[in-house]
Order: sequence, then C-alpha cells, then structure tokens
Amino acid sequence: MSSLPFFHLIQDDLQRAETLLQEPAPDQHLAITGAVQHLLGSGGKRLRPALVFLSSHICQADLTLATFAAAGVEMLHTATLVHDDLIDGSLMRRGTETLNARWSPAATVLTGDYLFARAAYWVARTGNVRLVQRFAETLMVICNGEIRQMFDSRSDQGIRIPTFEEYEQRIYAKTASLIALSAEAGAILAHTDEATIDALRTYGESLGLAFQVVDDVLDFIADERTLGKPVGSDLRQGLITLPVLLFLEGNGDHPALRSILTSSFTNERLQEAVRVIGNSPAIERSLQIARDYVRKAKEALRGFPFSPYQTALMDLADFVVQRQF
Amino acid sequence: MSSLPFFHLIQDDLQRAETLLQEPAPDQHLAITGAVQHLLGSGGKRLRPALVFLSSHICQADLTLATFAAAGVEMLHTATLVHDDLIDGSLMRRGTETLNARWSPAATVLTGDYLFARAAYWVARTGNVRLVQRFAETLMVICNGEIRQMFDSRSDQGIRIPTFEEYEQRIYAKTASLIALSAEAGAILAHTDEATIDALRTYGESLGLAFQVVDDVLDFIADERTLGKPVGSDLRQGLITLPVLLFLEGNGDHPALRSILTSSFTNERLQEAVRVIGNSPAIERSLQIARDYVRKAKEALRGFPFSPYQTALMDLADFVVQRQF
Repeated sequence: MSSLPFFHLIQDDLQRAETLLQEPAPDQHLAITGAVQHLLGSGGKRLRPALVFLSSHICQADLTLATFAAAGVEMLHTATLVHDDLIDGSLMRRGTETLNARWSPAATVLTGDYLFARAAYWVARTGNVRLVQRFAETLMVICNGEIRQMFDSRSDQGIRIPTFEEYEQRIYAKTASLIALSAEAGAILAHTDEATIDALRTYGESLGLAFQVVDDVLDFIADERTLGKPVGSDLRQGLITLPVLLFLEGNGDHPALRSILTSSFTNERLQEAVRVIGNSPAIERSLQIARDYVRKAKEALRGFPFSPYQTALMDLADFVVQRQF
Repeated sequence: MSSLPFFHLIQDDLQRAETLLQEPAPDQHLAITGAVQHLLGSGGKRLRPALVFLSSHICQADLTLATFAAAGVEMLHTATLVHDDLIDGSLMRRGTETLNARWSPAATVLTGDYLFARAAYWVARTGNVRLVQRFAETLMVICNGEIRQMFDSRSDQGIRIPTFEEYEQRIYAKTASLIALSAEAGAILAHTDEATIDALRTYGESLGLAFQVVDDVLDFIADERTLGKPVGSDLRQGLITLPVLLFLEGNGDHPALRSILTSSFTNERLQEAVRVIGNSPAIERSLQIARDYVRKAKEALRGFPFSPYQTALMDLADFVVQRQF
C-alpha cells in the first residue's frame, strides 16, 4: 500500500502510529514485546490506521489523538487475528508463521487478551468516550459474528449454505465493522456534526464489505506466494464465501463441491473445487458486487469539499478492488 | 456474602447491576446469552460490584454510573475466569461445570473475548475516561501477570520456586489489581481529590492481596464441596502459592513435595503433599500475612468520616480472612 500515490500524505502519521504500536508498556514481559514485534513486523497493509489519519485530516482532528486511535484500531485488528489463527489452526499469515504455530494455545490466548487490553488502552488515551464506546461495541460485533458463524454454519446434513444477507452480515461483523470505525474515528475525534460522522462511517462500511469480498475472491484466484497463506483456506474450513455462494446458484450438484459440503473430502477434491470455482463466472460476479460496494463508498464522500485527503479516500476505495494481495 | 450484616445497604444496587449483567446486547447470539446466564448463575460473591457500590456511596458518586462500573468489573472478572479455566483445563468452578467443560476451546475463547468487549462497553457507559483507562491498564496487568507466570515458572530442573516478592507480584496481578480498581471506582466516578482515590485504591489492593492469600490457603484446608472445585488444584498445576513457599523454608527436602517440584508425581503423592502442608504451621503463618494485609486495608480507611458505608468496608475486610469459601 505504501506505493499508492497518496501515501506520502500520511507517511509521517503512520510512522508515529508504528512507533506507538511497538512501545512496550511498563513492566511488559519480554515474551509479549517479542510477540508484538513478530506480529507487526510481518507486514500488514495498515489500512485501518491510514483511514483514521485520512478522516482525521479531513475533519481537522488533533493528530496526537488520531495517533492513539490509529494504534488502537490496528492493535485490536492484530488481537483478533491472533485468536482467529489459533481457532482456525492457521500456521501462516502474510507469509510468516502465526503465533500459534510457535506457542502453546494457552500462551496464544493470553497474548491475544493482552493485545485487546493494549488496544483499549490506546483508544482510551484519546480521552474520547464516544470513540471508546464505539470501540467496545465493534469488538462485541466482531466476536458475536464469529460465534454466530461457529454455531450456525453447520447442520446434521453438513455445511449450511448461508443466504446472501447472512454472508453480508458475517463479513460486516468480521471486517467492515472495524474499517467503519476507523473511517469515522477522525470525525468522532473532531466532534463534527452527525451527518459527517455518518458519511465517513458509510464510506468505511462499504469499503470494508468490498475489501472482504475481494479477500474471499483472492482465496480462489491468487497464488500462495502472493497471498502469504495456502489458497482455498476458506473452503477447507467449510467457510462458504461469496464466490461459492454464486457458483452454487447454477451448479448445486457439482460433485467436488458436494463432497466438501457434506464435510467428507480429500485434498484432491478440494483443489478441484477451488480450480472450478476460480475459473467460473462466479469470480467476475463477486468482483462486480465488490465494485458496487466501492461505488457506494465513494458516493458517501460526495458531500466533502475537494481536498487531497478526500481524493486519497477515493483512490483507496479503487485500490481495494484492484489489489492482488 | 449476602448474609453479611451490611449487605442490605447495597442490596438494591447489586440487584440493578445483576439486571444489567444479564441484559443481552442487541443482536446477541443466544449461545452467548445462555453462557452468560450459566456463568453468572453459578454464584460468585459479587465482591467487586459490592466494592464499587460501597466506595460510590462513600464518595457520593452517581449510582447509575456506579451500576455501569459494577457491571463492567464483574463482567471483566467473569471473562478472565472463562479464559483461565480453559487454559488450566479446569472443569469445575463454584460447584458447576466451566464453559470449557461444555464447549470447544474455540467457542470458549470467543465467548471470553465477547465478555471482555461487553465489560469494556459497560465501563465506557460511565462516560468516565479515567475509569476506562484504569480498566484497560488493569486488564493489561492481569494478562501480563499470567504470561509471566506461564513463561517464568518452570526451568529445566522443574518448577522454579518464586521469592515472596514474586508471589506477591503475581497475586497482585491476578486478583488485587481488579479489586483495587473496584474500590477506587467510586472515587474516580465522583471526581474526588487524589488522596481519596489513593486511599480507596490502597484499601482495595491490600484487601485483594489478603483475599488471594486466603484463597491459596483454602486450596489446602477446605473440603471439595465447600470449595466447589478439587482441593490441591494449585499444586497439581505446579503453582507455588504462599503455604507451599512457607512450608518449603523448613522442609525443602520433603519427599512428596520434592516429587511435585520435579514434575513427576502420582495422585497419591499430591494428596500426601496437600495433607502435610495443610497440617503444617505454614497455614497459620499464611493467614497471619493475610491478616497483616487486612490491617493495612483498614488503616487506609482511617481518613474517612464514620458512616455505615465506611463500617461496611471495614467489616468486608474482616470477612475476607474469616471466610470458608
């Protein structure tokens, strides 16, 4: 993302957030400091901090407070990934080992908890109660969504196929809710009127939905090296994403997919299903839906006066559907 | 605890907090609502909410805000127990099944995360930034302490014996930090002077240390039915608590204890070690240390004018070392 044309606008801001993220708390155990370095050092696009800073510039929020908020949302994101990877048994992310690949489940759970606390700490440092409240609500939405997915995605007959609305609700909880919070953070910090907060929130929510749809598409068409994790991970875990949903509309009886839906499949069957879906029109149809979200995101910005930061948010929305990683 | 003489003073307050704790968030999955009912329904002394209310009455804080804070600290306490029991593999607490005894590790991790978020939400509802910040810092202290315990308690030779200072640091992180936060919450909510906040915090910290020492003693001398979990749990997990520490001073070469410290022991050896320590002077010496903490806690209250609430805090301190459960 650092190669994007608007990146220089917030380069110094992102650097400040990075320094804050790496800063150990007083008395912090060295194992945690090492884990934070490992987790943050493995890359990541810093999409959420970028949104906090761009919206803070647009709304003229205090940049010191914005830095606290940026560190908070990125740390919350990192904490959720730590527990997610543990739960999914994922060993690789962004091309490097996950924490649970190195540590016991117990140490991984506790480190994730610590990172939640650290995230709450940074957000509280903004001194903005409304932002703290939105932060807590967002974490509730994220966890609630994962619990829903865990309890409702299987029936006695195997994997339950969600409706489009259920899929959208899931990716809202998983991804769009925190991206929406990041985008509205600048307006909340600047105490703008409600319409401005709403507009930036709508932008972030639509951007987040687009982002997750593209993620779900990449799981079928990217190569493992670019992706930093095995292709087809979602389907392997029985997660029905948009490409599968759309593919099933016309091909409900495809044998490779059938065997996956009844939860008894070989690795060969999985590879076949991934290949078949990746070469089907479901991919282009999914990307079309992502582009619709992006259009909605950009529409939400129309009320803002023209500025380099507004342009940057527009460009960022386009980037989300063009990215290959 | 509801049989204590001062209990009627805060009975209505505690009932309001209870109602709030049970209230499901909008859209909350039924599995979570069920888990919350199970976890809160299994009893618990509600020591932390009681402290929030007593300190709120003393400092004349707004009782609606106090109710949010009380729900927040109790929910945080519950969340930490959910992850603790998972990590320790404990199947019983307060005489009922733990969440991890019923659910998968994945569902247990996520439910704990949700409860952290819910706790942060209730604390944020106080609208008091300082309290939110102290809340986040306390969760960091708790997790950091557990990670320290996990990484530093064993060496190649087996279990490492902590110094008294290390033991005290551990029980501060585990128990006293949140009890201190509960006790100072009323003063923070009422925006009192710093001396008042400090006094209530010192009271809570000393009370919390006493509480945990008594807990550690009960693990040797209580019976399983009163305790609601197996006796000797700590030692079984290789946790060196104060009674063991003091016993070791004069009996470093006791064969039953030796075998436990080198991590190779039978259930018989464990029972023997529990019996020997439970009948040793280390128990009375531990209780003496707990009583010293209680004295310190009560001293911290000397500056407050006489009132039923001040008396209640004094009585609560005495209760902590007299309790059998």
